[in-house]
Amino acid sequence: MIDIAKIYATEGRSPLDALSYREAMSRVGSAVNIVTTDGPGGRAGFAATAVCSVTDNPPTLLVCVNTKSSVYPAISANGALAVNALGSVHERLSRLFGGKTPSDERFSAARWRYGKRGVPILEDAVVSFECVVKHATTIGTHDVLFCEVEGVEIGEIESALLYCSRKYHTVPC
Amino acid sequence: MIDIAKIYATEGRSPLDALSYREAMSRVGSAVNIVTTDGPGGRAGFAATAVCSVTDNPPTLLVCVNTKSSVYPAISANGALAVNALGSVHERLSRLFGGKTPSDERFSAARWRYGKRGVPILEDAVVSFECVVKHATTIGTHDVLFCEVEGVEIGEIESALLYCSRKYHTVPC
Repeated sequence: MIDIAKIYATEGRSPLDALSYREAMSRVGSAVNIVTTDGPGGRAGFAATAVCSVTDNPPTLLVCVNTKSSVYPAISANGALAVNALGSVHERLSRLFGGKTPSDERFSAARWRYGKRGVPILEDAVVSFECVVKHATTIGTHDVLFCEVEGVEIGEIESALLYCSRKYHTVPC
Repeated sequence: MIDIAKIYATEGRSPLDALSYREAMSRVGSAVNIVTTDGPGGRAGFAATAVCSVTDNPPTLLVCVNTKSSVYPAISANGALAVNALGSVHERLSRLFGGKTPSDERFSAARWRYGKRGVPILEDAVVSFECVVKHATTIGTHDVLFCEVEGVEIGEIESALLYCSRKYHTVPC
């Protein structure tokens, strides 16, 4: 094992530095999702890996979002979002939604339909979840949004886009 | 797109059923981790995919755990845990920690060392995080544990174990 940071006891020690944490977390693979919103707060979307299932009763997933990010005000105002899990064909789309590209240009790079809540649902996602934000917990720089899932759609794409060690990968799904 | 559940409007509609939600969520790939604990509440561990990063300031990840699960009392009592991301060699270990196998039998199937907090750290994990549980939010059947990361270790394993569509997959890491 390569120690990249000491393990500290409870009190009086330095916390783990952010760089070591990010380097370690980069090794943990995850699906790549585009989280979208629309409504009174405007349309917005961003690429997110910090998404996971919480419980199926009531069906709830969570999304972590930086409270200083450009999409945060829109999500907060709209109170609804979609999580669209990307397929192997979506690497370029992921980069667009993960960068500094203006919002209109991001959305014009793919086809969307609008669910009952009015949030953009990616036409050819591996799977999409339409959600209402029920509760949020602030942890440091981020809000963890607990989202009740009102509808799901499973697409016909056969391989999923994953991200691990700062590279894209593809697995059958 | 294949509709497997209708998208419902706000009030007076049936919520999404748990089965449709689980089927949809099964398409979202994730790393496979073994979450471990030890201390006054005893040693315990379980296989978990519902783990994600929250923020690097302070370095914090989250773990979702069913409050009715056999490991929950131990994690609650100990207030500390390790998240060990598995490699491609750990498929059998994942099954052991995801099933009904008694705790001692689970742990005897791998080599562990003990961090400063006394929690078991898997010797050949892709990466391990030693954490203190700082805060918990209850959502339905599950607690979301917000865990401050005190130490990390990156292993020398070169491929990570992922789970998607109820199958194991391997990607370089």
